[in-house]
Parts: sequence; structure tokens; C-alpha cells
Amino acid sequence: MSQYAFGVDLGGTSVKIGFFTCDGDLQDKWEIPTRKENSGEEILPDIAASLKGYMQKKGLTVSEIEGIGIDVPGAVLEGGIVNRCANLGWGVKPVGEELSALMDGMKVRVANDANAAALGELHCAGGRKNAVMVTLGTGVGGGVILDGRIVTGAFGAGGEIGHIPVQPGETETCGCGKKGCLEQYASATGIVRLARKKLEESSMDSVLREELPLSCKRILDAAKAGDRAALEVLEEVGETLGRALASVACVVDPEVFIIGGGVSKAGTIIIDVIRKYYTQYAFHASRDTAFTLAALGNDAGMYGAVRMIIEK
Amino acid sequence: MSQYAFGVDLGGTSVKIGFFTCDGDLQDKWEIPTRKENSGEEILPDIAASLKGYMQKKGLTVSEIEGIGIDVPGAVLEGGIVNRCANLGWGVKPVGEELSALMDGMKVRVANDANAAALGELHCAGGRKNAVMVTLGTGVGGGVILDGRIVTGAFGAGGEIGHIPVQPGETETCGCGKKGCLEQYASATGIVRLARKKLEESSMDSVLREELPLSCKRILDAAKAGDRAALEVLEEVGETLGRALASVACVVDPEVFIIGGGVSKAGTIIIDVIRKYYTQYAFHASRDTAFTLAALGNDAGMYGAVRMIIEK
Repeated sequence: MSQYAFGVDLGGTSVKIGFFTCDGDLQDKWEIPTRKENSGEEILPDIAASLKGYMQKKGLTVSEIEGIGIDVPGAVLEGGIVNRCANLGWGVKPVGEELSALMDGMKVRVANDANAAALGELHCAGGRKNAVMVTLGTGVGGGVILDGRIVTGAFGAGGEIGHIPVQPGETETCGCGKKGCLEQYASATGIVRLARKKLEESSMDSVLREELPLSCKRILDAAKAGDRAALEVLEEVGETLGRALASVACVVDPEVFIIGGGVSKAGTIIIDVIRKYYTQYAFHASRDTAFTLAALGNDAGMYGAVRMIIEK
Repeated sequence: MSQYAFGVDLGGTSVKIGFFTCDGDLQDKWEIPTRKENSGEEILPDIAASLKGYMQKKGLTVSEIEGIGIDVPGAVLEGGIVNRCANLGWGVKPVGEELSALMDGMKVRVANDANAAALGELHCAGGRKNAVMVTLGTGVGGGVILDGRIVTGAFGAGGEIGHIPVQPGETETCGCGKKGCLEQYASATGIVRLARKKLEESSMDSVLREELPLSCKRILDAAKAGDRAALEVLEEVGETLGRALASVACVVDPEVFIIGGGVSKAGTIIIDVIRKYYTQYAFHASRDTAFTLAALGNDAGMYGAVRMIIEK
């Protein structure tokens, strides 16, 4: 194995690039903008130019680099083929092959961004090989890691935890077109939606009525301060998530659930309420699965991407 | 690799033993009774004696046998340790180690029976590497195979599909102690339970009222004959299973769902109703997952068990 590798986290606004040793230590990191014009045609050449520029500056040769791990905000099929990234303007695109060609045949591995983040966080959690990560952000993303490897799935939908059907009676529609997905209850947007409904349907006093617009942070802060309406919303979020993760445990039975994304910044209050309902719904053997907060923040994707290259 | 291997399916009543080539071809099979007296102490020595007797009869040496794959009706942890088999009278038992010691240090691999059946059926389905099998019998069992390997899980609960929480409002209790598990709706017992409720709660005419006791086979036969009450029960079973498998697909996104067990003997009528609801609830990328009926019947465990040894 060579001495170094790149981890690239390709987002809708910027590309985060990390230069790592093959022991997984970050040596350097920087960002470049994601140019989405012309159906995202410039994105991979921009990344290649940045990597080559860095190598030149540091006097690094191709033989010193083991490869490039890159994650993208879309489904990834076997062989590093991206199956549509609406965010980037991409259709079906052989990202692995194209980036490798731009980088003198260097080894390239491609993953979905939520999956890469899960892999990065798992290694940060230390010593574990099986984890499910749930990212509670604008939507709900997820990643399943078994035996240290990402579960991609036959159609690139492995770890799409946010679209587990949790409420068959739901009348509102999820971003994916279905009704009753986990994302409609447990994302930042979903939490605001639940709070709005709660305030409309009841007349209970709440600090949430005092200022508009509602935001997920305000709701979680109000819950921490003991606001009853906010606490009831938090219970609903916890029940739905706890039940969904109990389903997940009946499938892959992970060692640990890693909770990340903006919503997880609320801290232990969110872990505690998820675990309360998880314990109630989980199959007895899996009742003691560990829960932990994500630790790498925005760097998780980069750390996970490079893992695909340096993993022994 | 040696030329031959044994596949052993250890059930509560009998042990099915298969003698295979390392290409996976069955050469011979036989059964011995499962002696459960003395906390199941005789079981492994009985199996070893049967295997050694066969080897002696055929003039086979230890070096000609690659190993023994064995499945058991309970949770299996890493290292071939069985974590309680109530059926057999076993507590925590290092089955891999013990059987290997009885067989002159031969390689032994251990799996849960539903997981082994999934592995056997997957190989029978041909060319695929990722599958989820659901066994609709007295209970609902399951097995998850990714990249040709069984997903055991951190607590041996990988593939415990039957205990996915599907109905938070359920008032009756599942065999596992929880309320609202898939097994309460989709097992043979669950289907009889649903039919009984349906007949109690409505006054609709039904051939099911003509004869008691109800059985799952009679209910499914009545559905095939167009009985309205039986058809409504079948829809409920299909809705619950289809929705649960849509959850499973959001986690591991398999190439194929294999439906086995006694209930699956009803044939395409059961696959069709599951798929109808699966398509409605599944994340768009996974909407076209294949469904197939299990093909190996009672031999699936034996075929799967040996796979753990002969898989390259």
C-alpha cells in the first residue's frame, strides 16, 4: 500500500477534500466550490485539477497515492456508477471511471454521502465494525455499515432509513412521493411540521406561539426548557424514530446507532427519547444496542470516503 | 480445498444431515432423531457419531472433508456460540468448538436455522448475492444475506424479520413479549387470529364459519375460491408484510425477497398480495425488487449450512 490517500466529500455547494495518510490521519484539508453549471460537467475536472495541483505543490507522485475515495449526494450503484444526482445536475454517471481517467488511472471508490458519513463516524467510534447511522437534517439520511463495509444495496438504496414507512395513515406527502415516511416526523422539517400541527390542534400555552416562524432549534430548546407542547412533539419524534430503529435492528442488528445531523445538536435529550422508545419496541436480544452522537460533523463524509481506500 | 463437506440442519425433532461435494452437489442425505434429554447433552455427540459412522462406511478420511456447516434453532453469536436454544434445552453453548473437538478438529461453522435456509435458497435462486428470506410458518423467521454471507448481527438477531414492530396500537401480545410484531399478522397462527377476529367482528357470510377449527390452509383455500372474508384477511396479511418488507428494503435493499414456510405453499396468491403492497410502500429506487417462492423446502437449512464451508 502507498503512503497517502485522498478523501473527497462532494456536496451541493462545496467539495471538501482531505489528504490522509493510509493510517487514516488527516494531514491537510481544503474546499473548492461545486460548479453545477452545464449539468455539473465541470465538477470532476475541478476536483482532479485541485488534487493534481496539491500533489504538484507537495512534490507527490502518483505512486505515493493509494487512491481517492469520493462521496456524492445521490444513489451509487456497483462499480462507482452514480444513479442520478438531482442536486448536481447529473444523470447516470460512471464517476469512478471518469475521475480515475482524469487522475492517470488512480484507484477511485465512490459512495453515497450518508453512507460515507456512517463509515467515517464508525471508525471514529472506535473498535466497532457494525453500525447504523441516522442523519437528522433537512431530511433523514442513513448509512448501514456491516463488517466495516458500506451496504450499498441492489438499487443503491441501502441505508435509506428516512423512507421507512412508519405511519400508514398519513395524509401529507413526503418529498419522495410516498406518505408516512420516517423523514416526515424526524427531520428538522418534519419536527417543525409536527409542532405546527400540535399548536393548531390544541390551545395549550406554549413559548412556541410567541414568535414566528417556528424552527427546529427553537422547538428543541423549548423542550429543554420544559415547554409542554414542545415536549409532546419531542415524544412523538422519539416514538417514531425509536420504533423505526427497532425495525432496523430486526434486519441488521447493529452494535451501535450513531445519531447525527443538525437535529442531533440538541444532544442527549434527543438520544434519550429515541432510546426510551427503542427499548420498548426492540426485539429482546437487541434491547441494549448502544446509541451515540455523531462526532465528526461536516468532516464525516471525507473521513468515510478515504476509508474505502485505506481499509485493509 | 478438500473434496467434500457436511451440511447439518439441527431441528427440534430431527437432525437432517447432507453429504456434499465442495461444488455444492448433494451426494447423500439422512436423518437422526434429536435427543433433547439431559439439557440436550447428547445432541452433538449423536451428530458426531453419525458423521464418523458415515465416513467409516464410505472409507473417507478427515483430510477429504473440508468441514461441517451446522444450523440450530436459536440465536448464534460470533465464533459459533449459540445463545440459548429453548427448544433443545441449551443455554449459552460453544457449538462450533464442541463439535469440532468431537470431530478431530475439523472446521465447523454455525448459523441460525432461518439464516442458513436463506443462504441455501439464495444459492438455489442462482447468480444472486443479496437476498432477504422470510419464512411464514408457525412463527415468522427471516434471514438476510449480503454479498453471499449471513448477516448475524451484534446480538444474533440479524434477520429477525418476524419481530419488526408493524402495529403500535396492537393489544394482543406476541410470543416474544412485545405487542404488534409482524409475526402476529403474517404467521400461520397470525393469519388464523386475524380470520377469527374478522368473523367475530362482522356478520358477513363465509365458508370459514361452516367448519371449526379454523386453519391457515383453509383460510388461504377459501381466499383462492373467492370467499370475501378470507380475501379481506389476505389483504391485511399482504398489507402488513408488504409494508414490513418495504422497511427492510430501506435498510439492506436486497436483489430478491424469498418467501418460504408453510404459508407460502399457497403459491402465487401470497406473493401477489405482498408485492401489491410492497410496491406501494417501497422507496422508489427499490420498487422493482424481485419476489420468489422458496424452492428447497425442508432441505434449505442443510444446503445453506454447507455453504458456510464451501463458499469461496
